[in-house]
Amino acid sequence: MTSATLRSSTSLIETPKAYEALLERIRDAHLLGSTEAILTWDQETMMPPGGVELRSRQVAILARLQHQLSTHPAVGELIAQCESDKSFIGSHSIESANVREIRRDYDRAVKLPERLMSEFAEVSSKGQHEWAAARKASDFKRFLPWLEKLVKLNREKASCLGVPSGGEAWDALADTFEPGCTAATVTKVFTPLRTRLVKLLGELMGSARRPSNRFNELALPIEAQARFVRMVVESIGFDFQRGRLDSSTHPFCGGSHCDDVRLTTRYSEACVNDALGSSMHEAGHGMYEQGLPACAIGTPAGLAESLGIHESQSRLWENQVGRGLPFWKWCAPKLADYFGQSVGGFSTTELYGAANVVEPGFIRVDADEATYNMHVMVRFDLERLLISGALEPKDLPGEWNRKYKDYLNLTVPDDRRGCLQDVHWSMGAFGYFPTYTLGTLYSAQFYDAAKRAMPGLEDGFAQGEFKPLLGWLNREIHAHGRRYLPEELCVRVTGAPLSAEPYLNYLEGKLRPLYCA
Amino acid sequence: MTSATLRSSTSLIETPKAYEALLERIRDAHLLGSTEAILTWDQETMMPPGGVELRSRQVAILARLQHQLSTHPAVGELIAQCESDKSFIGSHSIESANVREIRRDYDRAVKLPERLMSEFAEVSSKGQHEWAAARKASDFKRFLPWLEKLVKLNREKASCLGVPSGGEAWDALADTFEPGCTAATVTKVFTPLRTRLVKLLGELMGSARRPSNRFNELALPIEAQARFVRMVVESIGFDFQRGRLDSSTHPFCGGSHCDDVRLTTRYSEACVNDALGSSMHEAGHGMYEQGLPACAIGTPAGLAESLGIHESQSRLWENQVGRGLPFWKWCAPKLADYFGQSVGGFSTTELYGAANVVEPGFIRVDADEATYNMHVMVRFDLERLLISGALEPKDLPGEWNRKYKDYLNLTVPDDRRGCLQDVHWSMGAFGYFPTYTLGTLYSAQFYDAAKRAMPGLEDGFAQGEFKPLLGWLNREIHAHGRRYLPEELCVRVTGAPLSAEPYLNYLEGKLRPLYCA
Repeated sequence: MTSATLRSSTSLIETPKAYEALLERIRDAHLLGSTEAILTWDQETMMPPGGVELRSRQVAILARLQHQLSTHPAVGELIAQCESDKSFIGSHSIESANVREIRRDYDRAVKLPERLMSEFAEVSSKGQHEWAAARKASDFKRFLPWLEKLVKLNREKASCLGVPSGGEAWDALADTFEPGCTAATVTKVFTPLRTRLVKLLGELMGSARRPSNRFNELALPIEAQARFVRMVVESIGFDFQRGRLDSSTHPFCGGSHCDDVRLTTRYSEACVNDALGSSMHEAGHGMYEQGLPACAIGTPAGLAESLGIHESQSRLWENQVGRGLPFWKWCAPKLADYFGQSVGGFSTTELYGAANVVEPGFIRVDADEATYNMHVMVRFDLERLLISGALEPKDLPGEWNRKYKDYLNLTVPDDRRGCLQDVHWSMGAFGYFPTYTLGTLYSAQFYDAAKRAMPGLEDGFAQGEFKPLLGWLNREIHAHGRRYLPEELCVRVTGAPLSAEPYLNYLEGKLRPLYCA
Repeated sequence: MTSATLRSSTSLIETPKAYEALLERIRDAHLLGSTEAILTWDQETMMPPGGVELRSRQVAILARLQHQLSTHPAVGELIAQCESDKSFIGSHSIESANVREIRRDYDRAVKLPERLMSEFAEVSSKGQHEWAAARKASDFKRFLPWLEKLVKLNREKASCLGVPSGGEAWDALADTFEPGCTAATVTKVFTPLRTRLVKLLGELMGSARRPSNRFNELALPIEAQARFVRMVVESIGFDFQRGRLDSSTHPFCGGSHCDDVRLTTRYSEACVNDALGSSMHEAGHGMYEQGLPACAIGTPAGLAESLGIHESQSRLWENQVGRGLPFWKWCAPKLADYFGQSVGGFSTTELYGAANVVEPGFIRVDADEATYNMHVMVRFDLERLLISGALEPKDLPGEWNRKYKDYLNLTVPDDRRGCLQDVHWSMGAFGYFPTYTLGTLYSAQFYDAAKRAMPGLEDGFAQGEFKPLLGWLNREIHAHGRRYLPEELCVRVTGAPLSAEPYLNYLEGKLRPLYCA
């Protein structure tokens, strides 16, 4: 039953009215969130250094007011009123999905006491600061007291949110980032993934043949890189009428809403593939945001599904597209326009190979496709142990290093390149890391579905035709916002629940010919 | 009696507590205002076109929440509690000034019914849109119904605010922009100003001699202009650690607070003096903002005094400094570094002359120093008549054109270059224009006081030493925030109430030698 029929039914007139009143409040809260997002972007890209102190207070008051609007008792009453009308919510309509998702957000928000949230905000803000100093000095002891506090606060948070029956505390935290995600579901996909990745990595590293790294070692002027990368991002479909591309220390996709999406990237003179990869990655996030329905801005139907689904979009454009041979067939002849003579000696094959060099390393954010997920698995194992209490924070470095030896056969030289490398835990974000790998797996499964739906898709890439893929993603994924839960969406789009299989097939299919032919 | 002694007096302990609680609420409201200011800056400089619709909603909700915080009954109670303690507020302390100014803002805010403010916001938003279209087509009839509504709403606003005894409705509106400003006080300074300006202008225009305009007609690359202008702005003292300079269609000074001040300027390839003048003007505003006390951010003591005082700072750097011979002695040799050969043939004298060409024209924002204030006087006369009801909106073009003939001996060719040229009335801002001239007069009076306090000041400019002037302005004006009313501040700084005399002496002393020697 659609909302239109409900509106014509006089006996039910009250529910649509309650629903509209509910959406109005939710939209107001979102407006404050979207304002905060502009401030965050501004802080990373434009703000003069002097602005930093007041900026944190501006962001804090917006967060506080947003929380007040979202948890207002009237919101709870309006949700209950909508829910009580079974004919209104007992369907697969947008309205039904909106009420379900607003309920989800509301229940989480009201479960977290203001005292806890404010302590959490303070400790994670200071913790990040201490982490940055500790990482710089490679001094884990300095960060340890903060890590202890952050683990404790996260366990408290999990207990407020409620641990699902048969589940564990980590699940309650992960659910914030990926609805329905539990340690059990993650383990189910991670276990076969790890086995085959280890095997593949052994093959690749054991082979005498490997792609040349020469292109990745070619210094190119940053100004030319910026023009090149903007051309690529625009060519694959990012809409600059509704977005921007700037540079920042850590690349991210920010902005307010689908009509104002802001990407950042970073440039290293030493390797244009760094900027290219991070730009295509962020553009993937950005095109998801731009593809969300404008008519639903500020409501769940107009918001991105989850971090995992978001990451699927960024990975898909960065990897399946941007590290593929068809992309390089299109891209190779363009390089000379931006970089002149210096790139004349590279064949398409060599450029494609350079985009796919595999080399185990200590740093997650620098990892290639074959090793990236091993980094994530280490973090998933460890944060699960930290939250359950099986691992004490003081023992983290030893466990970390043991796992790196085990998973990647690497001896971690210091904590800076070990357990202090990522910002996430210092921000209080536990349960976040697996979404990177879930996104990677979704990307391959979605990409397979796209290729099945559009034979000849990759031939188009070689001609610079990326619109068909973006159009398909717009229709199949972006347009739905949060209408379906991640697992539901996956089944709808691909016909099957999430599995590591498509990703492993994709990776083996690409890397074996490059390394072991 | 200072607050410190009050704090040690147990019998009065409650007042300082109430005062702190009051400031906390005022600071929160200011945080939202400072956020809104970043959004406004972003909209003019960075936002992609697609963002415009949601941006107006983001700004609207921030304005609404700010109004709610500022007019909360608790604010009124806390003000009253502070005021009831005569020993607390009956002094010239910062605390006393803060309470007085918070009272002023609060009374104005609560006097304006939400219904009126929301109608005002809607009509002025639509009115601006219609004005822009009407100006483009030079079609006054299109704008007329909106002007009628805006005049009516302003009269209603004036009546809510309360017309001062012996005053007129216009006074209540002007007081928003310039505390204590009335039509009578404005007339008192404008009348002698006009008489002598008309006489001076007659002399200048009647003279056969005039400075060469050749430098103003020299096309120079915009990229080089941008580097040059940034150097000048930094040299005169704008702090780029706590500010930025970008470009926008209409130059302005925005940002959040003293540690994050954002200037914009505009570049015309045809004339670098356009960018130079507008940059020094906005930098003057910006250095005022940067000079406000950081410890008082978000309270009246940390806010700029009034539009008139603000404009005095921009005019002072733009005109008294930037159009002065000492400045050009410093600047002239630098031009070649930025523009090469093409500026080699200009003597310092010629550059100084080019900065001071006088030529009556139709457009206020393009006017020189000698004619600028005539444009303002026309608007002051007309808006006063509109608000009193003596002039009907439909008769505006005729009166406008008659006044331009009378004041500047110009025949206005169309309404685009006539009564449709300015945005102010379409934004609902009546009572604003005179602050431009008040600022101009303050600038000359302040500059005289600075020269008296620092003999040899201008000799320093010729050496690039602008710090002494900025330091003096910091101490004498900026550091006080809203502690003194404009007229009080003027007497404190210059020893006399505002007068047109210093400005006229300055202008005649500069222009007569250039034109009539």
